[in-house]
Amino acid sequence: MTLIGILSDFGLRDSYVAQMKAAILTICPSVTIVDISHEVEKYNIQQGMFVLASAIPCFPAGAIFLAIVDPGVGGARRPLLFETQKSELVGPDNGLLALAAEKEGIVNVYHLTKSQYFADNVSLTFQGRDIFAHVAGHLANGVSPSMMGPRIHNYVRSGFSSPKIRKSEIQGVVVHVDSFGNIVTNIDARLMERQKMAFGSRIRLRIGIGAREITYCKTYSDAGLGELLATIGGYGFLELAVNKGSAARLIALDVGDAIIIQSVGCQSARAS
Amino acid sequence: MTLIGILSDFGLRDSYVAQMKAAILTICPSVTIVDISHEVEKYNIQQGMFVLASAIPCFPAGAIFLAIVDPGVGGARRPLLFETQKSELVGPDNGLLALAAEKEGIVNVYHLTKSQYFADNVSLTFQGRDIFAHVAGHLANGVSPSMMGPRIHNYVRSGFSSPKIRKSEIQGVVVHVDSFGNIVTNIDARLMERQKMAFGSRIRLRIGIGAREITYCKTYSDAGLGELLATIGGYGFLELAVNKGSAARLIALDVGDAIIIQSVGCQSARAS
Amino acid sequence: MTLIGILSDFGLRDSYVAQMKAAILTICPSVTIVDISHEVEKYNIQQGMFVLASAIPCFPAGAIFLAIVDPGVGGARRPLLFETQKSELVGPDNGLLALAAEKEGIVNVYHLTKSQYFADNVSLTFQGRDIFAHVAGHLANGVSPSMMGPRIHNYVRSGFSSPKIRKSEIQGVVVHVDSFGNIVTNIDARLMERQKMAFGSRIRLRIGIGAREITYCKTYSDAGLGELLATIGGYGFLELAVNKGSAARLIALDVGDAIIIQSVGCQSARAS
Repeated sequence: MTLIGILSDFGLRDSYVAQMKAAILTICPSVTIVDISHEVEKYNIQQGMFVLASAIPCFPAGAIFLAIVDPGVGGARRPLLFETQKSELVGPDNGLLALAAEKEGIVNVYHLTKSQYFADNVSLTFQGRDIFAHVAGHLANGVSPSMMGPRIHNYVRSGFSSPKIRKSEIQGVVVHVDSFGNIVTNIDARLMERQKMAFGSRIRLRIGIGAREITYCKTYSDAGLGELLATIGGYGFLELAVNKGSAARLIALDVGDAIIIQSVGCQSARAS
Repeated sequence: MTLIGILSDFGLRDSYVAQMKAAILTICPSVTIVDISHEVEKYNIQQGMFVLASAIPCFPAGAIFLAIVDPGVGGARRPLLFETQKSELVGPDNGLLALAAEKEGIVNVYHLTKSQYFADNVSLTFQGRDIFAHVAGHLANGVSPSMMGPRIHNYVRSGFSSPKIRKSEIQGVVVHVDSFGNIVTNIDARLMERQKMAFGSRIRLRIGIGAREITYCKTYSDAGLGELLATIGGYGFLELAVNKGSAARLIALDVGDAIIIQSVGCQSARAS
Repeated sequence: MTLIGILSDFGLRDSYVAQMKAAILTICPSVTIVDISHEVEKYNIQQGMFVLASAIPCFPAGAIFLAIVDPGVGGARRPLLFETQKSELVGPDNGLLALAAEKEGIVNVYHLTKSQYFADNVSLTFQGRDIFAHVAGHLANGVSPSMMGPRIHNYVRSGFSSPKIRKSEIQGVVVHVDSFGNIVTNIDARLMERQKMAFGSRIRLRIGIGAREITYCKTYSDAGLGELLATIGGYGFLELAVNKGSAARLIALDVGDAIIIQSVGCQSARAS
């Protein structure tokens, strides 16, 4: 039984997601569909890219992904299919798929051109349904990616910024704020380890012109109620969080804002 | 494997949708359920009717539909089953199902009266679960619609207004505003063609006492950033939209408002 | 085919729910997953407990439930598995599961300790994915609950308050406000019957220092448009509602507020 994971900025109020699912299930009735998110902020490719890339590692090998955050739908941007070492991803050539595909190891990239795998009449405003969902259905039926169009060697990269290490500090950036108000960065657990920041230790957090010391906790409840902390959250990255509260309400940080993490000696392990 | 599409105004915060799904899956465990929308505005039968009718053409023949926007639940309004040339639809007799059923071609209409296909104790406040979900489950198991109750010949019509053609203009109405802010009308692509309005041409849009010329685009990105345009959207109807923006924020149009479309000669193809 | 019902406070904007589903489906690809709700108010164990317990009776015997409202994730609170006479429930030991489990009849309670049924690297911030979803997947594959850890005899109780009967009145409490604005109490239909309150009769509703008479209706449309009424709603409990309106907008009642129901003689059957 094939799994198809879907992500979009369509929301759940309209029938757009259902139209895509119905198209897939018409072509391949036995597929199991998992919604990754349909509440990506409208047109926000970066957010969709991050949410998609963070969810994909949980899926089994052989899964198919359909991702649509596509402000340029029907225009010059190409419809793509990434074949990776673990899965297949379809969506627009605007960076949305690139981060996930690169993490999985890209084997081939195809420009979707073979209209026999599309709907009979392709709407230029809803290619999520008429191109991408149809292609996903045919992939689930076992059609080879190489049948779908020519191999290409260029595509829009993800633009996901990697954190930088400068001496004893990590310079990262906010990539997402989740529905709990957790402020998620692009700094992962391995980087924290490499910089010798261990769970339980105090770290110095520099934001804008301010700095404060917080604890790098194993989990939220390791800090006091309402206290700002840092931890590795459900997305697998360092996040600022508040035990039973919302970090986003406590500190004004938006996606794209810089954030610097510095280690602090044990003797200075007290709140700044 | 049978597909069941569900639509309601129940929202996703409460367990009402899950209670319906659990009832269906208890009766027919192998069914695949697709959520069409559960965020229809509370009690808004017209909106539910439109969203349902627009989604159903994407489903394969043999699908079953369960739709519940039912302010009169448990009262005098009858529980109905429409058997069409393509599918079966269950829900209240308040117009919600009628548009979709009429588009598919109604074969028979049944008044659901046979309580052996209902829950043991039917709640008068939650017939979505105790009548309609149960009936849908039994239909998925292959029970014939004719077993479910007497055939009837009257039902509440959809009240979906058809656009009118007057000389060289189309008089339509706003039927929906989607989550992108696209303002969806009751004018479909065929009507635009019949009136010789081709993609790429300028059309005159009359709303209230105002008029302006906009481009009838193939897709959103054919217009400039933030520019109002007309196109055939994901619901299959003419909609007013804004490239990477929200038409609903730009112009004050609500469901039910009149909208007139006139063709414009190529020579006058400039913004009003 | 095994059914797994999932409830959480994760919301649908992030990929957390999808990550749990992908974990389950990796272990047991044939399972059918039903979302009960993911829009439980953040950290609100009581609300999650009520929504879960009200939905579970609709599921068939043999279903598995995964419920995560877990402000103490990764801390001292234990991960639990309830084996009941009808189903299996996994989640944190904070009362969330207890009401549902007690209603179904608890057979055994297990402390989940056997890490061979967890993810390889358990995140302390996302045990919903790394412990509970994994355990649910293995249960769906037929692993016996007794393999998952030691039996225990204590667990955090639900704290769901039972209504009290004093002479001819029922003293209840508001336990939930649904998305329609229906104000749901902890008073069930049987208790209303035992107190000789029949559908159609007038009842006196005492809230705070005020009192008013309303009708105990079979369904919403039995009352006039906009009129406050009492009925047994979709959760199976007495609720205050408004025909085609929102009771929560009409009267200021929150979860935890006391509410007293008194029967009224037929002769006094008029609005107060």
